[in-house]
Amino acid sequence: MNKPFLAAAVLALTAPFIAGTASAQFFAKAEDAIKYRQGAFQMIKAHFSALQPVIKGQVPYDKARVAAEVSVLDVISTLPWAAFGPGTEGGGALEVVWSDTNGFKAAQDKFLASLKPLTAAAQEGDLNKLRAAFVNTGASCKACHDNFRK
Amino acid sequence: MNKPFLAAAVLALTAPFIAGTASAQFFAKAEDAIKYRQGAFQMIKAHFSALQPVIKGQVPYDKARVAAEVSVLDVISTLPWAAFGPGTEGGGALEVVWSDTNGFKAAQDKFLASLKPLTAAAQEGDLNKLRAAFVNTGASCKACHDNFRK
Repeated sequence: MNKPFLAAAVLALTAPFIAGTASAQFFAKAEDAIKYRQGAFQMIKAHFSALQPVIKGQVPYDKARVAAEVSVLDVISTLPWAAFGPGTEGGGALEVVWSDTNGFKAAQDKFLASLKPLTAAAQEGDLNKLRAAFVNTGASCKACHDNFRK
Repeated sequence: MNKPFLAAAVLALTAPFIAGTASAQFFAKAEDAIKYRQGAFQMIKAHFSALQPVIKGQVPYDKARVAAEVSVLDVISTLPWAAFGPGTEGGGALEVVWSDTNGFKAAQDKFLASLKPLTAAAQEGDLNKLRAAFVNTGASCKACHDNFRK
């Protein structure tokens, strides 16, 4: 190991913190957590919206392409929730996120559960099932936004 | 299908566009592309930085945890590049991103290639190899930021 080089690389990065994945614990600053979860939602929106032209019949159904979008969704959809820890209030999230943690958790679970039939339909290549699942996931997005987002 | 419900769900979302994944083509608005790639980089930074306390020996090496972080990195690291299409200038990116597309592609490739030994080390569970690969990836981040970011 080249120690000075390691130090330089480390200094070039942000302050250390533990983020993402199931066992995530904390972010060093609330601002980091807010930026992280907003980034995750931006990506979720993009990859979910990317399915829209297919759902609406504006572009031909490309099974491999849709399956790729959904597989990205399956990863990113699990990530923002760890960034809503105590002390990370703000960034467009309503206070009810922290005062009704059970309700917020239930909304997350509903969204994550809605991705299962979407994933199954994408893997199967069934556009009708995909459309139904897409609508269901979209409704879970909207319900959570209505209740927990400014 | 419940058509009005579908329409409502669709309206609740952003304008349709095709994002992410290898075959991505375009975003409806430059602003969407900029937000998307910034979100992706935010997440890459978070998951890469999450390895830092392990690399620095501040927390015990947890093989499963590190492997999970790196597997998220492996997915997200492929995503921001499709959002640097023509007409999406700005958002902190230097003009050279669009004037030297070969140079920018080479910087991306270097970063993506640097993740292969990081992934291998994470899967193997070898902290010394992980440390070396982390430094190498950090250097590729820094080099790209120095040349292509304001």
